[in-house]
Amino acid sequence: MSYPVTIKDIAKFCNVGVSTVSRALNKHSDVNPNTRNKITAAAIELGYIPNNNARNLRKTANKSIMVIVKGIRNSFFNRFIHVLVEEIDKKGYSLLLEVTDETKNDLQFAITTANEKKPAGIIFLGGNIFHSEKEIKSFQFPFVLCSGQMPSDIDKSLYSAVSLDDREESRKITNYLIQMGHKKIALLAADINDIGVGKLRLEGYLDALTQAGIKTPIINYTPNEETIPTFSMENGYIRMKELLEKKHDFTAVYALSDTIAIGACRALFDHGLCVPVDVSVIGFDGRDICNYYSPRLATLIQPADDMARNSAEILFEQIEQQSSHKIITLNGILEYGESVRPLYNKISKATSQTQKLNKNPKNKLK
Amino acid sequence: MSYPVTIKDIAKFCNVGVSTVSRALNKHSDVNPNTRNKITAAAIELGYIPNNNARNLRKTANKSIMVIVKGIRNSFFNRFIHVLVEEIDKKGYSLLLEVTDETKNDLQFAITTANEKKPAGIIFLGGNIFHSEKEIKSFQFPFVLCSGQMPSDIDKSLYSAVSLDDREESRKITNYLIQMGHKKIALLAADINDIGVGKLRLEGYLDALTQAGIKTPIINYTPNEETIPTFSMENGYIRMKELLEKKHDFTAVYALSDTIAIGACRALFDHGLCVPVDVSVIGFDGRDICNYYSPRLATLIQPADDMARNSAEILFEQIEQQSSHKIITLNGILEYGESVRPLYNKISKATSQTQKLNKNPKNKLK
Repeated sequence: MSYPVTIKDIAKFCNVGVSTVSRALNKHSDVNPNTRNKITAAAIELGYIPNNNARNLRKTANKSIMVIVKGIRNSFFNRFIHVLVEEIDKKGYSLLLEVTDETKNDLQFAITTANEKKPAGIIFLGGNIFHSEKEIKSFQFPFVLCSGQMPSDIDKSLYSAVSLDDREESRKITNYLIQMGHKKIALLAADINDIGVGKLRLEGYLDALTQAGIKTPIINYTPNEETIPTFSMENGYIRMKELLEKKHDFTAVYALSDTIAIGACRALFDHGLCVPVDVSVIGFDGRDICNYYSPRLATLIQPADDMARNSAEILFEQIEQQSSHKIITLNGILEYGESVRPLYNKISKATSQTQKLNKNPKNKLK
Repeated sequence: MSYPVTIKDIAKFCNVGVSTVSRALNKHSDVNPNTRNKITAAAIELGYIPNNNARNLRKTANKSIMVIVKGIRNSFFNRFIHVLVEEIDKKGYSLLLEVTDETKNDLQFAITTANEKKPAGIIFLGGNIFHSEKEIKSFQFPFVLCSGQMPSDIDKSLYSAVSLDDREESRKITNYLIQMGHKKIALLAADINDIGVGKLRLEGYLDALTQAGIKTPIINYTPNEETIPTFSMENGYIRMKELLEKKHDFTAVYALSDTIAIGACRALFDHGLCVPVDVSVIGFDGRDICNYYSPRLATLIQPADDMARNSAEILFEQIEQQSSHKIITLNGILEYGESVRPLYNKISKATSQTQKLNKNPKNKLK
């Protein structure tokens, strides 16, 4: 075998046509899986190295997009990152990953880090920007907020963002619970001083209550000094336990994220309660786990793929064409699940009891 | 206010000592949260920019570590990435994120991408390397396999790796089920041709069965042509449904990952079965969700933080001191959960029935 190995060598080795090899190696779907495996195995066996000159020409070492993730333990952003890696790679850039924790001011972090690493642009994944207009104006890198928020008093021509209307989606969720007959709706909320999605979703909850003439919001805030991340199962578990210990009277729980909702469900189970027979629960985000949890969890689906794709698109428009800022607001989709029940259907105490089995209160979380 | 703003200015503004400001901005835990918030707010308000000269000196644009993640939708790697970002940042390097899909040959991908981007080193997160010794020797970048595998016939002095002994841990899991009285143990396995962790965990399962004199393995492989990721809830759901439709006789299911186990549980519920009353289920990985699922899921905990930290450490030793390769094998921890029951305890049919409520078979996955 002569070196470097070409696709002709592979074709000969496998006894197939050159175009079949090319299609197999480029992952076209019209190649028989067995043939594709044979070709891939042969390419490896023979030491074939793809000709990436075209790709190389487009890439230079410093063409990078910095993606700043708010709390990477929040696996909700995985779907975003997956799409961003693809979109950024397509444009011949590299993805520089940075992580901030919940308490950090993201723009401050970005100023420091971007000055060091000089990316072509920045995508903020989640998180809040709470600088002044003056400071936002002086920030010299193209950037897009993806699923994050600026305070509402910031001039919208100063920045680019792709998100849901969190306040409106939150109103929709709360309204759905109200339509199902619930009036005593508890909210597991973020820090009372939150000025990002936590604040917007809180406002949406209050909007819906006000519209329905419900005068008694039941809110359990995440304390400011809490060290575990707000949007985590652990936090949902603790906040729900607090609410149960306070003996608040409620029939439904709206949690600000699916992770909080799952933690809340577990706390309810450990308390000997059943979802949705005793308490209905709804989350926010539309994570895959909702469909596999028991009961299937009601939620509000954020179109993550579209959000990521739009964010990359806007950013590259700014980088390549020096285009101006753009704000895109997408719609969420309410997913009913099994964790919310209509309150007007009376369920007998006996049925409720049978569902409380197998929730050994001794098995508390560590 | 003179520019640039210093921590003295902030101290004066907040009426606290300079050391308090310094400790607050460096996130020391001995500062009162209210004071810390006041100081942080003042720092932002005054436009304070931290002095990062020391950091800058250490950093240059091209000092990067490439992290190649096998299937980033697999959120199991989040915990690893979180630690890697920290460790890499500490050393003054940037983290370049790359993603490969399940079908790609990771080393082939790394050769192409590393030649373009010239990282100082590479961490493979998950995945399989199945090149020849000759090819591994000719790979010019320092690298570490974190939670990934090389075929056992590759000379161990040729590479660095941090992982569990997947075969042994898998044997432990299967043995635990056997100790609980189970003899009919189904395995939800990877592709039959898998040569990475899928193969090793399969071997461990077979080892345990052989040791216990159990002659009838029940294995449902993920088909080679399956397009959804092997280690996903969706795959677990489909593979479990197949097994149920084949009417195999089993009392326990061992799934190769927690995601597969969760998908399997959901399929069991949709089939009107109860975990663990009708079928015991155990996973592998030790994800957070196990503790919040209902029932709490038995699993084998991989020490993700230690694995990531060790990987970074070995890689930097290679980069900075040109040290030789190192293989580190860590131990997993068996977590009993609630999803496995001892088979010798007879549970009456009546009890089992009551636990089947609320599993509406019409609510199938979309």
